Amino acid sequence: MKVKTEIIAVGSELLLGQIVNSNAQFLSKQLAELGMNVYYHTVVGDNPERLEQAIKTAQTRSNVLIFTGGLGPTKDDLTKETIAKALGRRLVTNEEALTFIEDYFKKTKRSMSENNKKQALVLENSCILRNDFGMAPGMALQYEDKFYMLLPGPPSEMKPMFTNHGREYFTTQLGFQEKIISRVLRFFGIGESQLETDLQDLIDGQSNPSIAPLASDGEVTIRLTAKHEQETVAIQLLNGLEKTIQTRVGQYFYGYDETTLVTELMKKMIDYKITLSAAESLTGGLFSEQLTSIKGTSLVLKGSLVCYTNEVKQNILKVSKETLKAHGAVSEQCAREMADNIRNLTGSDIGISFTGVAGPEPLENTPVGTVFIGISMSKKPTKVFPLNLAGDRNGIRKRTAKYGCYYIMKVIEGEYS
Amino acid sequence: MKVKTEIIAVGSELLLGQIVNSNAQFLSKQLAELGMNVYYHTVVGDNPERLEQAIKTAQTRSNVLIFTGGLGPTKDDLTKETIAKALGRRLVTNEEALTFIEDYFKKTKRSMSENNKKQALVLENSCILRNDFGMAPGMALQYEDKFYMLLPGPPSEMKPMFTNHGREYFTTQLGFQEKIISRVLRFFGIGESQLETDLQDLIDGQSNPSIAPLASDGEVTIRLTAKHEQETVAIQLLNGLEKTIQTRVGQYFYGYDETTLVTELMKKMIDYKITLSAAESLTGGLFSEQLTSIKGTSLVLKGSLVCYTNEVKQNILKVSKETLKAHGAVSEQCAREMADNIRNLTGSDIGISFTGVAGPEPLENTPVGTVFIGISMSKKPTKVFPLNLAGDRNGIRKRTAKYGCYYIMKVIEGEYS
Repeated sequence: MKVKTEIIAVGSELLLGQIVNSNAQFLSKQLAELGMNVYYHTVVGDNPERLEQAIKTAQTRSNVLIFTGGLGPTKDDLTKETIAKALGRRLVTNEEALTFIEDYFKKTKRSMSENNKKQALVLENSCILRNDFGMAPGMALQYEDKFYMLLPGPPSEMKPMFTNHGREYFTTQLGFQEKIISRVLRFFGIGESQLETDLQDLIDGQSNPSIAPLASDGEVTIRLTAKHEQETVAIQLLNGLEKTIQTRVGQYFYGYDETTLVTELMKKMIDYKITLSAAESLTGGLFSEQLTSIKGTSLVLKGSLVCYTNEVKQNILKVSKETLKAHGAVSEQCAREMADNIRNLTGSDIGISFTGVAGPEPLENTPVGTVFIGISMSKKPTKVFPLNLAGDRNGIRKRTAKYGCYYIMKVIEGEYS
Repeated sequence: MKVKTEIIAVGSELLLGQIVNSNAQFLSKQLAELGMNVYYHTVVGDNPERLEQAIKTAQTRSNVLIFTGGLGPTKDDLTKETIAKALGRRLVTNEEALTFIEDYFKKTKRSMSENNKKQALVLENSCILRNDFGMAPGMALQYEDKFYMLLPGPPSEMKPMFTNHGREYFTTQLGFQEKIISRVLRFFGIGESQLETDLQDLIDGQSNPSIAPLASDGEVTIRLTAKHEQETVAIQLLNGLEKTIQTRVGQYFYGYDETTLVTELMKKMIDYKITLSAAESLTGGLFSEQLTSIKGTSLVLKGSLVCYTNEVKQNILKVSKETLKAHGAVSEQCAREMADNIRNLTGSDIGISFTGVAGPEPLENTPVGTVFIGISMSKKPTKVFPLNLAGDRNGIRKRTAKYGCYYIMKVIEGEYS
């Protein structure tokens, strides 16, 4: 069967322009990877008649219908009900889902209102897709020659549900022959255009695997996608191309697929049993926050100080009045003292400091984008890395935190391995 | 005539998930302001047969069809051609557009390729919408009882074209009397289903203004939209309904439209000239990071301590060994000491503390989602707020930071105003 997929988003908030249909983009990417053709996106409001019409239209032109939204507890959530009507299926209570919902309310000590039970209703004889981040279960079924999948609207629920359960449903049900395997290589410290120049001949000559560079948030990724009936062959194709790429730009490579600089840094520090602490002025806690967003951080991050004011830099971090007076808070000297002092204050192996001007206005006559990152180590002289970053306030802060991870990794590779 | 608008985006890049359909969101907002109902968004690829089908479908259910994309010079730009075919109109060269294009190439000293002339082709007897930021002109026309508008795909061209020329076309052609005014009320600390239950009668009886609740990231918003020929009356309608809503759930209200909890907290603290510092265990810097992401933070946030380990809680924050031994780090007592000590350490008016279990595993036999937020004030007894939050590690941390903002605002309203 030739797959013709239509993604139908249900929600008046989309038609009012309150939110953008990012679900359709996410699903389209995923389906492209699976080799499933997407021919239409449709958005329809919380209106049963128009939704029913949209379903009828989709049935005439598509054979895989994926719905997002309208599975919630409120009156205007009516995707299940309308599809049930269109397919002549009953809605039945899913005991597993009901128990899950009841437990959720017990756990959070909130009172469960009647309409929450509505979320446990599912289409009869459908395959349930577990919701690991919310209450409304998803479902999938085949009816006549068409496939139907119902996913929740909130991206935080929909994305993991499709990745962890929805994809598998299609791969098994549609019995794909060709295996499509992707691998993302992540780079930091090199610009997109430089990377493209270094790989131009490979990009021009690409066929299978395909090469797709993408720049975002100061990082560059390259997505390699290979297709073959045998998975092992597809993987060999990827390995061959990656090897060529790594020999050219390997020094900027930091990880695969969905990883982040912070994750890779954490792994390395846990391996080497190194402890860390940060003195954050410019970044205001962003660096520590990113580390602590990963489990197991307590093995690495002892603690950090958000020293946003000079008062705190002096009184708690003990940066000398002279340094602040003579060089200012945004200076190589201040970054050095901040890094040394936070390391001593917490007794960590490495102390890192962030000071700079995020803007919008210059500070102490120092232009926006001026940044100093200090790294203090027990066994080696303290290093200070100066940066001049472009972008707005938060762009500068985010990229500064990334450079922090990158520099620590480089330092560790040099000092500890 | 009752306006039924359909926005049709043409472009395979949308169906591949390479870009998100932000044009549809932008136009939907604009059209809502004009009081034009949007009933459908459709996305179709650069394929003449499917585009023609999409046009036919739209003609059966909509009377205003707005197209974005496919006006460019390349072979796969075929929106004009396909619409011309569907409406039986000729494409004619628009001299003004052609001159403009030729001038553009002269100016930029680039050589004009033949296919660029294609961009000067317009539907016969259509109203031309000037493109102030690109080469392809837009166009609008009435055919039988329907209106058609063709806009370019790049948002940088489409948005100004619609705002500066497209809006006017509709207001004059459709001769609108009615003004549409929206207001978004933002709530925190109440679930969507609970809020709906509290407002059920209003939601059931809604007509003008309309009421649209929406939940995301632990917050709930209600969009009120009023229509009336006189703007003042529409505003009166909104005020009346808001008053009723505020009397019922006002204690959870925190702000209007596009604001955030952090922004509202910052405003309040700057107004009251209150300084703040945080002791962040569970949140690991997230709370401070969110404050410092807003300019002007230095007036409010003196500094914070990320006290991720008990070692740092004891040695730097001076939480008593006894407390940690007897009650553990995740306890009402520890939250209280953390809040008091960070306030004294930094000399701030308010000290806030965050301790809890983000998971994935329980900590000190305390279940995931257990959270204590302490708030210490110079003039008043310290408060500790216990929470039981559901969700994954980062969901718990993010919601904890939001509760922190919410509780401080409540405390300030009680203590300082």
